[in-house]
Amino acid sequence: MNFRAAIDVMTKKEILDPQGKAVKLGLNNIGIDAIKDVRIGRHIVVEIEADNETEAQQKIEIACKKLLANLIMEDYHYTISKI
Amino acid sequence: MNFRAAIDVMTKKEILDPQGKAVKLGLNNIGIDAIKDVRIGRHIVVEIEADNETEAQQKIEIACKKLLANLIMEDYHYTISKI
Repeated sequence: MNFRAAIDVMTKKEILDPQGKAVKLGLNNIGIDAIKDVRIGRHIVVEIEADNETEAQQKIEIACKKLLANLIMEDYHYTISKI
Repeated sequence: MNFRAAIDVMTKKEILDPQGKAVKLGLNNIGIDAIKDVRIGRHIVVEIEADNETEAQQKIEIACKKLLANLIMEDYHYTISKI
């Protein structure tokens, strides 16, 4: 079976996000005010073959911990769906 | 009222994603096989003040079209929730 994992990797809240700050200024400059905060991270879509959802989840968990996220600075969240 | 928009910006399917290809190879190298495809985009979290959800959505729509996504190469999706 094939599964699709949608993974969001974001810098932790206590770490500054200069890219987000720049985008917030950019939004103000094009006339969109009332922006409180902008944070920018990565959205990773992985298509994976596995026998069942549990196996897919285990593989995605390992992928996040070992490669996709830097756990010192980043948090990750994901959802898995069958395709 | 404050709203949080979670925006995913991804390159269109017909456009090559070399970063995703590199990550796919990386996953194979650390022993995670059965990966069919990897695509990498941006995950942008915007906190915005608006009178209601419709107004927040309009502002986010403009932000995506004018600044956050390059519509020639990228697609965007978002969800808005009250915070």
